[in-house]
Amino acid sequence: MTAPFPSVAPPPRLLLGPGPSPVDPRVLEAMARPTIGHLDPAFVAVMDEVRAMLQPLFGTSNALTMPMSGTGSSGMEAAVVNLVEPGDRVLVGVNGVFGGRMCEVARRAGAEVVRVEAPWGKPLSPDDFTRAAAGRGFRLLCVVHAETSTGVLQDLAGLRTAADAMGALLLIDAVTSLGGVPVELDLHGVDMAYSGTQKCLSCPPGLAPLSASDRALRRIAERTHAPVSWYLDLSLLSDYWLGKRGGGRAYHHTAPINMVYGLHEALRIALDEGLETRFARHEHVARGLRAGLAALGLELPVAEGERLPQLTLVRAPDGVVEAAVRRFLLHERGIEIGGGLGDFAGKAWRIGMMGSGCTEASAEQCLLGLAEALRAQGASVVDPMDAAREAWRA
Amino acid sequence: MTAPFPSVAPPPRLLLGPGPSPVDPRVLEAMARPTIGHLDPAFVAVMDEVRAMLQPLFGTSNALTMPMSGTGSSGMEAAVVNLVEPGDRVLVGVNGVFGGRMCEVARRAGAEVVRVEAPWGKPLSPDDFTRAAAGRGFRLLCVVHAETSTGVLQDLAGLRTAADAMGALLLIDAVTSLGGVPVELDLHGVDMAYSGTQKCLSCPPGLAPLSASDRALRRIAERTHAPVSWYLDLSLLSDYWLGKRGGGRAYHHTAPINMVYGLHEALRIALDEGLETRFARHEHVARGLRAGLAALGLELPVAEGERLPQLTLVRAPDGVVEAAVRRFLLHERGIEIGGGLGDFAGKAWRIGMMGSGCTEASAEQCLLGLAEALRAQGASVVDPMDAAREAWRA
Repeated sequence: MTAPFPSVAPPPRLLLGPGPSPVDPRVLEAMARPTIGHLDPAFVAVMDEVRAMLQPLFGTSNALTMPMSGTGSSGMEAAVVNLVEPGDRVLVGVNGVFGGRMCEVARRAGAEVVRVEAPWGKPLSPDDFTRAAAGRGFRLLCVVHAETSTGVLQDLAGLRTAADAMGALLLIDAVTSLGGVPVELDLHGVDMAYSGTQKCLSCPPGLAPLSASDRALRRIAERTHAPVSWYLDLSLLSDYWLGKRGGGRAYHHTAPINMVYGLHEALRIALDEGLETRFARHEHVARGLRAGLAALGLELPVAEGERLPQLTLVRAPDGVVEAAVRRFLLHERGIEIGGGLGDFAGKAWRIGMMGSGCTEASAEQCLLGLAEALRAQGASVVDPMDAAREAWRA
Repeated sequence: MTAPFPSVAPPPRLLLGPGPSPVDPRVLEAMARPTIGHLDPAFVAVMDEVRAMLQPLFGTSNALTMPMSGTGSSGMEAAVVNLVEPGDRVLVGVNGVFGGRMCEVARRAGAEVVRVEAPWGKPLSPDDFTRAAAGRGFRLLCVVHAETSTGVLQDLAGLRTAADAMGALLLIDAVTSLGGVPVELDLHGVDMAYSGTQKCLSCPPGLAPLSASDRALRRIAERTHAPVSWYLDLSLLSDYWLGKRGGGRAYHHTAPINMVYGLHEALRIALDEGLETRFARHEHVARGLRAGLAALGLELPVAEGERLPQLTLVRAPDGVVEAAVRRFLLHERGIEIGGGLGDFAGKAWRIGMMGSGCTEASAEQCLLGLAEALRAQGASVVDPMDAAREAWRA
């Protein structure tokens, strides 16, 4: 008998969509190192190093800062199911796919969910939450820091005060922000945050870094019911990742050893570069990309000052078939970009410049490819490169 | 700024515990291939191939046969939360850690759990379940096919009939069995099974292969409440892994791309070897290991005929400090074996001969290391190699 399929041979791709982002070869190489046991003292040391390196990324000294053994969505589920008990009221900001997903996850955990809506492509204000609370108390105030479905950056200032007024813990979705823009949990009084590895950390998908404040942990300790998820129970996970009172690591599940190696290397790369330098690089590349897109006559639905540098929403012009442009880029140029979702489905593209994929060269390839794709659709567009390069020189 | 830690350098280890098992270099190399998008047609093809190759491993033609994006425990949680609704009665066979864990996961999903206990180290019989049901109806009958905590192989014959008599679906934990002994879902009328990648598939931990029968899917379609887990909702996952009615893959979460590459290669290796050959290899190596252990004067608490070939429980002799033997093996010989759990904590070892780690050479190193470790504890033991080799020649 022989295997019915040849070995995986991924085609060459430049990943400029909403994630996964291009993975640094150092990360791939680290993932291919020999697997060791999940309770091996040598692996426990790696876990401790990962925790220590995640803290500056999250801007926190939270001891419970560690990856969940699942993708970014498992981080969302972990955060919600550990903080929510049946009947709790939860206030969720919804201005894109991921706010909506938080509502659904909270609902399944038994919460009474109140949505605070803003148009897709717009951020929310602390007042929006205060008004929606209408004087009621809430267990949890949830907001998406970087909406992957629209490219909106949510300002976190003022949310702690709004949460305090309603007695709520503050939870943020940092899936697309972590490693691309500052995520300052302690500065903004955030109680819990989760992320993914496949965005601005430039690691393959598979882990969900999460951080919990002492206040969040006190809340968890006071729960009446155990969380609905055993797999994502932070009290049990803490006994494995941080150790039990009195020492020793308690077996919970078998951590995805090689994914943790990859995250370890991705964090080393981010800290080697320096976070300020890394954030500045994302801003710099975005400036040129946006200038080039403007030269192509393309409109950015998100207002200046509210845009993520690492993810740009671009409106597809009238007469251009959105999906055909993505197909051209993927199949003719090996470039992946994303399509719009929800309100922007079929009407927009999402261009990611994340982590190690965030370079002038990536932006240039994207702009050239877009110009070609638009011309292939009969649009008349100018060369976008001068505008991009001028923005980079400025 | 520079990274505060050097790159991960895993020490040399021969993994002969209850998992993770030694990973074939082909699998590690596959995991290091470039990441592509989770909706890229090239990745969708890989997903289809993984599904097709998992089917023979599970002995099934179930269309919904695919990996969950988490470790083996996420497979358990996925199976339970998709089949159970609040108030459902669930019958669980408990003769080790993992039966107990199923009870806890079902309880958190709102089930009324009835435990069917056997002593640790003994299997259960269909009559045990029938008696415990006491004429009541049950939603689900759960049993562990290969108890990783004790090394007991559970015969599946007769369980379908027992389940039918109580109106139950049949769920099995195949974490340690898949790829090491026959797992025949269709033959035994199993409705759902889950596994892990880090046991007899010899892939790193991080995915939980799962298979669901048409009857299980009908039950899921008839649910009144959505499963408590959004991340593990099989209806949503099916739209991504199998496609929606009318075609197209619906985005759910970002699959752990490189882990899927690894599983793909691990499945190719298993099918290249041939499943019958692979199972025979596990039996063969176990024969020599057991003979060598007997020569060392060590007792196997699980009765002949009820033992897993891939995982052997060994009682620590009086006067020998169980943990000291494991420490000696790990630190002096680079060999990882497991300690006992629950009833066997501090009293036994667990020796895994799984997947690519299941070789005569592994068994020899383990026996030699054990002999040295026992002598270091002052025990007087003979050379176990003659007995092992004789068993292999027989």
